[in-house]
Amino acid sequence: MLDFPDISASRSSVKEFASSNPFFVCVISHTETSEIPGLTVAGANPELVKYTAPADSEFLYYGRCKCIEGVPATPDGKPTPALITRAALKSAGIPLLVVEAGTKVKPSIPCIPLGIGPGKNITRENAMTMSDVEKTFEYCSMLGRELAKASDLVAVGESIPGGTTTALAVLSALGIDARFKVSSSMPENPHYLKNQVVTTALQRTGSCRSAFEAVSLVGDPMMPAVAGIASGVMGAGGKVLLAGGTQMTAILAILKDMGSRMDNVCIGTTTYVARDPSSDLEGLVGSISPKVPVFSCDLHLDQSKKPGLQAFARGFVKEGVGAGGAAISAMLKTKGQIDGKMMMAFIEQEYEISIERPSVT
Amino acid sequence: MLDFPDISASRSSVKEFASSNPFFVCVISHTETSEIPGLTVAGANPELVKYTAPADSEFLYYGRCKCIEGVPATPDGKPTPALITRAALKSAGIPLLVVEAGTKVKPSIPCIPLGIGPGKNITRENAMTMSDVEKTFEYCSMLGRELAKASDLVAVGESIPGGTTTALAVLSALGIDARFKVSSSMPENPHYLKNQVVTTALQRTGSCRSAFEAVSLVGDPMMPAVAGIASGVMGAGGKVLLAGGTQMTAILAILKDMGSRMDNVCIGTTTYVARDPSSDLEGLVGSISPKVPVFSCDLHLDQSKKPGLQAFARGFVKEGVGAGGAAISAMLKTKGQIDGKMMMAFIEQEYEISIERPSVT
Repeated sequence: MLDFPDISASRSSVKEFASSNPFFVCVISHTETSEIPGLTVAGANPELVKYTAPADSEFLYYGRCKCIEGVPATPDGKPTPALITRAALKSAGIPLLVVEAGTKVKPSIPCIPLGIGPGKNITRENAMTMSDVEKTFEYCSMLGRELAKASDLVAVGESIPGGTTTALAVLSALGIDARFKVSSSMPENPHYLKNQVVTTALQRTGSCRSAFEAVSLVGDPMMPAVAGIASGVMGAGGKVLLAGGTQMTAILAILKDMGSRMDNVCIGTTTYVARDPSSDLEGLVGSISPKVPVFSCDLHLDQSKKPGLQAFARGFVKEGVGAGGAAISAMLKTKGQIDGKMMMAFIEQEYEISIERPSVT
Repeated sequence: MLDFPDISASRSSVKEFASSNPFFVCVISHTETSEIPGLTVAGANPELVKYTAPADSEFLYYGRCKCIEGVPATPDGKPTPALITRAALKSAGIPLLVVEAGTKVKPSIPCIPLGIGPGKNITRENAMTMSDVEKTFEYCSMLGRELAKASDLVAVGESIPGGTTTALAVLSALGIDARFKVSSSMPENPHYLKNQVVTTALQRTGSCRSAFEAVSLVGDPMMPAVAGIASGVMGAGGKVLLAGGTQMTAILAILKDMGSRMDNVCIGTTTYVARDPSSDLEGLVGSISPKVPVFSCDLHLDQSKKPGLQAFARGFVKEGVGAGGAAISAMLKTKGQIDGKMMMAFIEQEYEISIERPSVT
């Protein structure tokens, strides 16, 4: 019996991505574009943003962070969505692998570093060299091919502050109108600032001939890593769940540009992104590769007793660190035995352990 | 139907380690002890020994090496057992992950580096710091726990030139008489030299109170890595196949010393080690943890048309890079559909591609 009452599907059925052994990969990265004031709240203050991605990956492993005190949070204290991801992976015994694609701070965990630096501020200089884009993609494809031998569904999430702006830039460089469609970790989506950043970047670079060139000029290092893993998995006959929101549409654009068949890839996210009135994930997917399904799961956090979790349902944070895709993977692996409300209970437990009484961990 | 005519078992049945989804991990490492003249032939000349482990791991991924021309070989041209490992993993679609535990040269592949240096020459100084032993073990346990979620049998191989001497040293430091029992990549096992190296090392250090201390004083960085993976896998309820020869008995000694239950671990190797008259794998296992089974597979290389492969059956090389354990894993995964002779055919194909006409790859 496969029944997933809390997973909504834009098209196709989530049953086509059924998996008894999903594998979760988290790509952590940094773009200096995130240091432009006002672009992201993925860090309690601008100085802390460079710790967010490595701290998220530490949280996934340990349930606490090593490179910072406490957990990554917004300036007004909303906690990282890594809470959801960790709860989801634990609930269904889903294996985790972390890929470090150019963070500024290195995490204290076993992970696969790609040997590249952080992405540059795209308003001022190219994000990364073409050879780093190619090497990142190649290494990650190799990794994807191996993971496809271990798992029939590889879910790939990301933690890169400021990533929706570089996603907007890459989509724009490829001629896809994504303005006012990318999501934000804030309820008040700073679209005008993002559009301005992207306009400045594209004035600097001119047009792009390929997705790789777009990534090199105005993207970020997370992109060729996630696209490479996805490409490797699909090349080996596996299925891929891109665990994230509108940032993942840039990955779709890369895969499409490379001629990938798009029938074994989906996007998995939270309803907080999928139904976000300030962005348009469905519309973006439709304008890139309309047959790619978008699955979103309702985690019922609006009913949570914890104010920090309720906020996710009120437009704060919404998604990240593959939270929605990890939750969907857990539902798939348990054949629907875990539904959205049960997942909410696991997330609340995680919140109690790591936020309310962290000294116990 | 499970029938494995080419796998010999010392005790228990290999069926207890049956697996539909084995995962293979290769730990690559270096000990400066290998630079003592006469101790190893895992390199065409002493200067090349530091390339052997990274080149092996590159070969597993690409079927050719990047850090050296050709493939690792003995001074008289016997090729690396990575040939067997690659053929075995390919034959059964077994996923591969490489862990870099202190190589001198870094491989050009995606892998998990542990951030430690090569092991020191144990005749002169301690192999590694206690904190590096502990960190390596901890990171690798974390990794093992994740792999156990993806696979019911994790096979762990190694490539570390000179590793039988450090194994002898650790066993001796723990009071296990392993003299004349450890194997060699040469037909003429240099036991007297190994014993002398170990005597010198133990005179320097005195006795050891724990296996970790023994590793720190006279071991090598491969040991806490492999032991950590094994411990993590078993702690998460999985089974472990230590893919190697007499070096793996040092891992058993570490696991036993740490109080691991020893009922989910086995050693898997080639018959060339298991029946080697110049060493005593069975005897070593018996004096450490008698209930741990030793499985050895007959690859029928004595019947190979290729002289370079025949040599494996005549006491050259014998094992390494987890060759025997990878072959056993492939037999297990295919439920015996791949037997020793079929595996020999795959190995010969690999030999033709990579040794006889490498320009084609």
